Amino acid sequence: MPDQALEYARANRPRFLEELKALLRIPSVSTDPAHAPDVRRAAQSLAAELERIGMENVRLIETSTPTRNGHPLVYADWLHAPDAPTALLYGHYDVQPPDPLDEWLSPPFEPTERDGNLYARGAVDDKGQMYMHLKALESLLAAEGRLPLNVRVILEGEEEVGGEGIAAFVASHPPELQADFALVSDTEMFAPGLPTLCVGLRGMIYTEIEVRSAKTDLHSGMYGGAAPNPFFALAHIIASLKDQSGRILIPGIYDDIALPDPQELAAWQALPFDEDHFRASEVGAKALVGETGYSVLERIWARPTLEVHGMPGGFTGIGAKTVIPAKAMAKLSMRLVPGMNAATTFARLSDYVQQIAPPAVEVAVRLIHSGEPCLIPVDNPFIHAATDAMRQVWGRETVFVRSGGSIPIVGDFARHLALPTVMMGFGLPDDNLHAPNEKFHLRNFYLGIESILRFLQLAGRAS
Amino acid sequence: MPDQALEYARANRPRFLEELKALLRIPSVSTDPAHAPDVRRAAQSLAAELERIGMENVRLIETSTPTRNGHPLVYADWLHAPDAPTALLYGHYDVQPPDPLDEWLSPPFEPTERDGNLYARGAVDDKGQMYMHLKALESLLAAEGRLPLNVRVILEGEEEVGGEGIAAFVASHPPELQADFALVSDTEMFAPGLPTLCVGLRGMIYTEIEVRSAKTDLHSGMYGGAAPNPFFALAHIIASLKDQSGRILIPGIYDDIALPDPQELAAWQALPFDEDHFRASEVGAKALVGETGYSVLERIWARPTLEVHGMPGGFTGIGAKTVIPAKAMAKLSMRLVPGMNAATTFARLSDYVQQIAPPAVEVAVRLIHSGEPCLIPVDNPFIHAATDAMRQVWGRETVFVRSGGSIPIVGDFARHLALPTVMMGFGLPDDNLHAPNEKFHLRNFYLGIESILRFLQLAGRAS
Repeated sequence: MPDQALEYARANRPRFLEELKALLRIPSVSTDPAHAPDVRRAAQSLAAELERIGMENVRLIETSTPTRNGHPLVYADWLHAPDAPTALLYGHYDVQPPDPLDEWLSPPFEPTERDGNLYARGAVDDKGQMYMHLKALESLLAAEGRLPLNVRVILEGEEEVGGEGIAAFVASHPPELQADFALVSDTEMFAPGLPTLCVGLRGMIYTEIEVRSAKTDLHSGMYGGAAPNPFFALAHIIASLKDQSGRILIPGIYDDIALPDPQELAAWQALPFDEDHFRASEVGAKALVGETGYSVLERIWARPTLEVHGMPGGFTGIGAKTVIPAKAMAKLSMRLVPGMNAATTFARLSDYVQQIAPPAVEVAVRLIHSGEPCLIPVDNPFIHAATDAMRQVWGRETVFVRSGGSIPIVGDFARHLALPTVMMGFGLPDDNLHAPNEKFHLRNFYLGIESILRFLQLAGRAS
Repeated sequence: MPDQALEYARANRPRFLEELKALLRIPSVSTDPAHAPDVRRAAQSLAAELERIGMENVRLIETSTPTRNGHPLVYADWLHAPDAPTALLYGHYDVQPPDPLDEWLSPPFEPTERDGNLYARGAVDDKGQMYMHLKALESLLAAEGRLPLNVRVILEGEEEVGGEGIAAFVASHPPELQADFALVSDTEMFAPGLPTLCVGLRGMIYTEIEVRSAKTDLHSGMYGGAAPNPFFALAHIIASLKDQSGRILIPGIYDDIALPDPQELAAWQALPFDEDHFRASEVGAKALVGETGYSVLERIWARPTLEVHGMPGGFTGIGAKTVIPAKAMAKLSMRLVPGMNAATTFARLSDYVQQIAPPAVEVAVRLIHSGEPCLIPVDNPFIHAATDAMRQVWGRETVFVRSGGSIPIVGDFARHLALPTVMMGFGLPDDNLHAPNEKFHLRNFYLGIESILRFLQLAGRAS
């Protein structure tokens, strides 16, 4: 039987792409207060589109409180399938900052097609993937006049800055989020053409370590040799956080980890992973690093890690300035694996940093945001419907992987709403997430829409 | 006998101050290419002023070459005292960048008087001190119609970026710089009201250590735990450059040092130096750091040091970005003491950094600029004239100190032109050189003009 919704999705590919480009032109950088109006504009345009395709009860839900400026949630639903389950479709419309700008081959907010890919900030993370949901819903509503199950859509604009607003909303158990399962498309396929479901995510703590060493910036000639330098204190602290083999030296950090079971580990070993290709072509490094005794996939998916993202302070311009800065900072995050929790991990990091800090300086360790790790049980009817849908669209069996990244909302859905989440993502390993030249492979955009459409049809019959 | 030049200088203080303010309003930041027109504008205004007060042969000397954009030198002379010696008066009209801007109490390029001080970038380093020379010359020429000795003035606009242009000019032994001694006012008094001559300067090498770890920025979730992070490499390198007692660990770095003689060390011990006041009020630190076994003054004046000024790379904005940057950098300088030389020191630093760099990353060590250390023999008639002049103006005996800072031109004058330099400076220890809220104490500006005027009179009779 020809599927009219599928035909509609195929026939409208060019328009879907143009719509996505319009969305990508909005620089909805959630971390930058200057872009707050753009973030809102993105939310409004999505609300208008949800309305247009026939979703109901469409509205923005504000997340600001007296003490914080939040970005709005976008809500919509269609609830006219009384005998079918209810899906909660989640995505985020905010994006990472585009810097360093000079490394982009085309402007980050001017979507550009090259070699079957669409290049733009947010192309894959997550505007492009989120937009697949909307276009699957449009195809079903336009072709069939109805959806095969009940659907609630919730879109957030703070995923890249910790998702505080939606976390509070989910924790309040609102009736708007009553559902049987959640669908999130913010992950990637393990290899091109290989259908993939993500069933585990790392959590994270994002922190700032600020060292203050003097009351004012000092001249390195007049004071060098006597005044403490905050960068030496930070270098000492950072160099003391991991040993040369990559093991984290924070006491207790490995105490609570739940190791993957032997079956999951065996499945990872069967994945088509070429470490040398990963090193040379994806990372582009002379050598990989990390904890000895663990495979690359274990290190990324099942081990806690610690990274420094930037060290603001002092003079960072072109040329020379001979300053001993009064203060400097390290932006540092940790990824957490199942068994760990954010509050305990932050306390352990903070205590250890204070303990190893040189006595001449003052050190403050601040938590910027956090999210818990999570693991999805794979034996449920929605995961089965997802693998069936992917087999039909891609012609191959689905692999189960974890992600080293963090999507805190998935843990919140499980903890507060007892929802299993299907993480069906269509990014590719070389999509440059969070980096210059982010892209989305257009075939994955189109087949992703078909996969989601088919999944919603099959999930409508699951019970 | 009343001195008419001195009376002229006193009578014209208000105008001198207004003229200095006009000069300080020009943001002649030499390290920033965007300010190149401002740097030139400062040079032109000084040339016009030299012309106006009666100096001759006034002109800009260009320092650009086919491979670099240089800032101009300003030259002027007055050579009508055939039986008197010739003085070379040096100063610089470029300034350090003003950042961090938000820590200035008044705008850096809007000179503001508070509590007997003039606040502005360049107030003391070196526009204010250089301008004392011009106003001493004006007072002598206006009151007496002539100068008590021959004078050449050379002003540069690249002191804060290494002084490459003037170094090349001096090395070419131009007739414009033929003189018997040089006068430089770019140092400070050891304590308020205590006349001070600086007789030793540290040299420096300013470097950039760049670590490249990957071909592109990477997502810390997707790659954290396997991809090398340039900040860990830099932290490891920086933490390995000095031990906990402050000793530099670069092999051979202390091999060639010429120690101060016992007489000079004894004189330093007699100086009114209060370590606790220095720590608490000048530096504003919990504790001082530095090589054990050496006093603070020895550490600053007679020991090599190494400082990190900034670590550009990655994400340094407000908020969170979970990036493993592809590259990061440390801006790092060393101060050199007599016996050391810049080329050898840079080679030792560079070799050591390459040796301790983690194998997973590529490291480049670049020399941005350098200057040699120097020591002035104190037993010469111009130093004697200087101490006599200072005794007359300040009513106290002069102390001889060194500076931890670097004025490479003084070494160049000695090496290429065999000129002794009188470093008669009127900054104060709390003038915030190179930092926010740089200031010049106005009494020092006015008495500095009188000291220089008197010194030129006495030097005219020296032989």
